[in-house]
Amino acid sequence: MQTLERGVTFILGGARSGKSSLAEGLIEASDLDAVYLATGRAWDDEMSARIGVHKARRGPSWTTIEEPLDLVGVLQNECADNKAILVDCLTLWLTNLMMTERDIEAETAELVAVLPRLKGTVVFVSNEVGLGIVPENRMAREFRDHAGRLHQAVANAAATVYFVAAGLPLKMKG
Amino acid sequence: MQTLERGVTFILGGARSGKSSLAEGLIEASDLDAVYLATGRAWDDEMSARIGVHKARRGPSWTTIEEPLDLVGVLQNECADNKAILVDCLTLWLTNLMMTERDIEAETAELVAVLPRLKGTVVFVSNEVGLGIVPENRMAREFRDHAGRLHQAVANAAATVYFVAAGLPLKMKG
Amino acid sequence: MQTLERGVTFILGGARSGKSSLAEGLIEASDLDAVYLATGRAWDDEMSARIGVHKARRGPSWTTIEEPLDLVGVLQNECADNKAILVDCLTLWLTNLMMTERDIEAETAELVAVLPRLKGTVVFVSNEVGLGIVPENRMAREFRDHAGRLHQAVANAAATVYFVAAGLPLKMKG
Repeated sequence: MQTLERGVTFILGGARSGKSSLAEGLIEASDLDAVYLATGRAWDDEMSARIGVHKARRGPSWTTIEEPLDLVGVLQNECADNKAILVDCLTLWLTNLMMTERDIEAETAELVAVLPRLKGTVVFVSNEVGLGIVPENRMAREFRDHAGRLHQAVANAAATVYFVAAGLPLKMKG
Repeated sequence: MQTLERGVTFILGGARSGKSSLAEGLIEASDLDAVYLATGRAWDDEMSARIGVHKARRGPSWTTIEEPLDLVGVLQNECADNKAILVDCLTLWLTNLMMTERDIEAETAELVAVLPRLKGTVVFVSNEVGLGIVPENRMAREFRDHAGRLHQAVANAAATVYFVAAGLPLKMKG
Repeated sequence: MQTLERGVTFILGGARSGKSSLAEGLIEASDLDAVYLATGRAWDDEMSARIGVHKARRGPSWTTIEEPLDLVGVLQNECADNKAILVDCLTLWLTNLMMTERDIEAETAELVAVLPRLKGTVVFVSNEVGLGIVPENRMAREFRDHAGRLHQAVANAAATVYFVAAGLPLKMKG
């Protein structure tokens, strides 16, 4: 059984691979106060339904914060020695940055720069999206380039990295 | 070299990753009677050709059963202490369920419920489909959600789980 | 830390997963002369930009050869005991073969046949493309079939195989 390490943990996996469940389990088995930082914005009904399912699964012991864009600001305000913050997820945050035409390289560089200075424990969840056929859509290609670069940078800053498939974690680092 | 364990083995991998070859090799190296349970339906010529190639590769020692939908029924009838059944594959079975508008949650729950009670040895093969860009097509998104949930449930029930890439197996469980 | 083995090394991973950086790092940390064999053809501006970024990252110690099609010829001429050749990448080579309507099975069989006879050290980099939803486009399906078969064959001939995700290498063989 995996246990939560202090500092930054990064959980990468496919759609419905059990990434969020792993992150929630790690945090619930720790003695830290659980904070859920939801980056997902309910752009449509399908997304609303997904958010609802995730929320129902977590118990009342969780504090939920919704922040689609200012991830760095929330992490700087909320991180504390007695807390574990689950950021779910980086790919939705990237989507929101692209939708609002932010400078993605600047935003992701700022996030990566702040990671070593955060107190407490943060678990980032993200979707690996780069293992299929090159998308025909240019925006999708840009998205997976941004995601790949962000994943490398977060993995580099993390103490522990898991790749998850079929609900099974594979420790890649730590 | 891997050897086949009694009970349920689950082999997950990408397209042309060598999943079926691994499953066939595990079963042929065992002293069990080999049964091939093909879930693929020849919807078109391309699919027919793929099925033909798979069939030609297996030797005459294999008994072949074709069943696109009633996976649970066949497993309940066929499983026996002296047999190893290769189910190839779960993603095609899911495709057939969607094409015929079955209740996928009920069907997959029934399959998962029956697994601990099966006698003998079963090897499930399935395609990981959740590691690319989110598909634009809603049905494709639903499909990968169903596949991801099914993979988690089968992996949970399995004694042994492999992830296969470039023909190389990585043991995730067991 | 990974070190470069003599013979054939194969590095497989997703888009922006850090495959090329890993390959470059392995070769730069060796005492071998570094040769970069670029298979990418600048079909458009986006591709030109990608090639430029890769080139700028490598130092002046690298010799660069550009060859979109005759991979086997270049390897046979260039391989030598004191050299490490980085082939970046197999999926672009496959793309070029498809674009120019070559006999892909014959070309890939020729490459695989020549691998055991090469002197010196070769590092192949390639994109795993088979872990997403089945593409709607027939050519894309054929491409991922070719890629999957080629990856299996190269991995089989290689002494060392890495799967890379988020910049982190996972040794699959060797």
